[in-house]
Amino acid sequence: MADNQTWILRQRPEGDVKEGDLELVTATLEPLAEGHLRVRTIYLSLDPTNRIWMSDMDAYMPPVAIGEGMRGGSIGVVEESNFDGVDVGAVVNVGLAHWARYNDVPGEMVTVLPPIPGLPLTAFMGPLGATGMTAYFGLMDIGKPRAGETLVVSAAAGAVGSMVGQIGKIQGCQVVGIAGSDDKCRWLTETAGFDAAINYRSENVGEALDRHCPDGIDINFENVGGEIMDAVIARLNDFSRMPLCGLISGYNDTEPTPGPYNFANLLMRRTLLKGFIILDYLDRFSEGMEAMAGWLMAGKIRFETDIVDGLENAPGSLERLFTGKNLGKLVVKVSEEP
Amino acid sequence: MADNQTWILRQRPEGDVKEGDLELVTATLEPLAEGHLRVRTIYLSLDPTNRIWMSDMDAYMPPVAIGEGMRGGSIGVVEESNFDGVDVGAVVNVGLAHWARYNDVPGEMVTVLPPIPGLPLTAFMGPLGATGMTAYFGLMDIGKPRAGETLVVSAAAGAVGSMVGQIGKIQGCQVVGIAGSDDKCRWLTETAGFDAAINYRSENVGEALDRHCPDGIDINFENVGGEIMDAVIARLNDFSRMPLCGLISGYNDTEPTPGPYNFANLLMRRTLLKGFIILDYLDRFSEGMEAMAGWLMAGKIRFETDIVDGLENAPGSLERLFTGKNLGKLVVKVSEEP
Repeated sequence: MADNQTWILRQRPEGDVKEGDLELVTATLEPLAEGHLRVRTIYLSLDPTNRIWMSDMDAYMPPVAIGEGMRGGSIGVVEESNFDGVDVGAVVNVGLAHWARYNDVPGEMVTVLPPIPGLPLTAFMGPLGATGMTAYFGLMDIGKPRAGETLVVSAAAGAVGSMVGQIGKIQGCQVVGIAGSDDKCRWLTETAGFDAAINYRSENVGEALDRHCPDGIDINFENVGGEIMDAVIARLNDFSRMPLCGLISGYNDTEPTPGPYNFANLLMRRTLLKGFIILDYLDRFSEGMEAMAGWLMAGKIRFETDIVDGLENAPGSLERLFTGKNLGKLVVKVSEEP
Repeated sequence: MADNQTWILRQRPEGDVKEGDLELVTATLEPLAEGHLRVRTIYLSLDPTNRIWMSDMDAYMPPVAIGEGMRGGSIGVVEESNFDGVDVGAVVNVGLAHWARYNDVPGEMVTVLPPIPGLPLTAFMGPLGATGMTAYFGLMDIGKPRAGETLVVSAAAGAVGSMVGQIGKIQGCQVVGIAGSDDKCRWLTETAGFDAAINYRSENVGEALDRHCPDGIDINFENVGGEIMDAVIARLNDFSRMPLCGLISGYNDTEPTPGPYNFANLLMRRTLLKGFIILDYLDRFSEGMEAMAGWLMAGKIRFETDIVDGLENAPGSLERLFTGKNLGKLVVKVSEEP
């Protein structure tokens, strides 16, 4: 039997993830069980929620237990099949798997990924993956964009934010993104078609919002929390909507992140705020996939993938999401595509 | 011509309303304009929002200007009519009027109030007035109660809260109220039919919620904000709803009241939070009135009115809403019913 390697959670990180919080453990693979597939990982998805799963904060699903394999989105190729209907060689989305070279999973758990001409496999982790679906359903179902409205999205150059803004443009919105570098801002306006982008590291976000949103803000797609959220909430219009997708600025905090100092504005502006997790929309994925695939084919959506090489670099690369280093979807390439 | 007396806003209160912030000014009434009615005030409605209108915080409508008459809900009797269709002697709801003995208003602005056998006129300021409609639409339209769910309401013995809880009971919910005295708590459970009531002055709200809401909280009808809100948010269930009706604990603050320290729980629990103002539901009032009147007639809804005598006591009585002194709907009786 071949060896597997798996990142095991050894202790709950305090603040940033540090060496020793996870350990890469080598173990011999057991024989494959009936009804199962052995999937060799090609790409691991790195997402802010990985950090949530490492902590014991009250979250939307139980954390990874100490001593268990770290959890994450994964795409791979079937190397052995004890499941009728999925053959060796099939490229599959495993959903939530371990950060490991191999995952043995029940066959019903995977989705076979059709090759799409012109699109890289990583598209299934970006626009056609969980982040794309997060953007689609959060914006369309909660944000309910109407042509002419102003949409602001934070973490705008990230995997979710970059999709949100482009879907907003397709819906006819004025779209303003907030991101952490001039390079990202340039990508947002020059490549992704945002109307404006604000570098929160070098600009006063409130003043920049005043300049770019003269008619106020109708939709705040919230990914970040903290002071940036406060600046957006202060400028919401009556009957505005606020899909609450993430509060990444607080995930490494050791204390709960306080809410917006101007919380009362949600009352005064009669804002609808709705927390959501993409798993809530699983039964509507085909709708989202169809829409996103259509827009991708029509060239209306651009996306970037930030590829880190090597399973051994997974934990150390997660911080790229929190320090504003990555543009687009962050993935770890664990092995070659077939 | 007779004299009028009007409370004029002289300066924006800092913190609690103090003497000198408003002044009772006597002036001779002008001749009544064409199309107008002269309404002698019988009852003035005192509501937390009066305090909002005195301040220049960013609110849902412009504040009362310095030098203008104080704004408030008002019921009165028509003493002079230059408007076809409303006769002298009619008892009318003026909507938003001045804190004054007389209001001259366009005839289209008023609603003639039919006498309802067995109900006092003040019911049109309580269950059949703006506070009753606030409770009805906030709970039914945003809270969307389902039988068996747990509903928590803060400021539960107030005009809105007491209606919310009773409507919740009619919908089959487990209803827990939070109020500021043992007397109020007794009224909630013994008269209004709440399943439980928590005195936030003498009990640890979190512990009491754990005891009374063993299955978590599905709906938080929020009237108060601050630490009480934090305790409720910490115990919300997945897919919970939070009609955001008021944040009364902060209205006398000189700094913006911070949001909940556990704001992230709105994300994790996928809570729907929606700010609302009763004016947003004006076009659906007949629906709310019909439902509330039916429940009142059937004896399913109980209500109390806290009547203060004399226009001169209006500003000084407002603090009863903020110090937890009043039970039910607070009104000022300005003159006798016809």
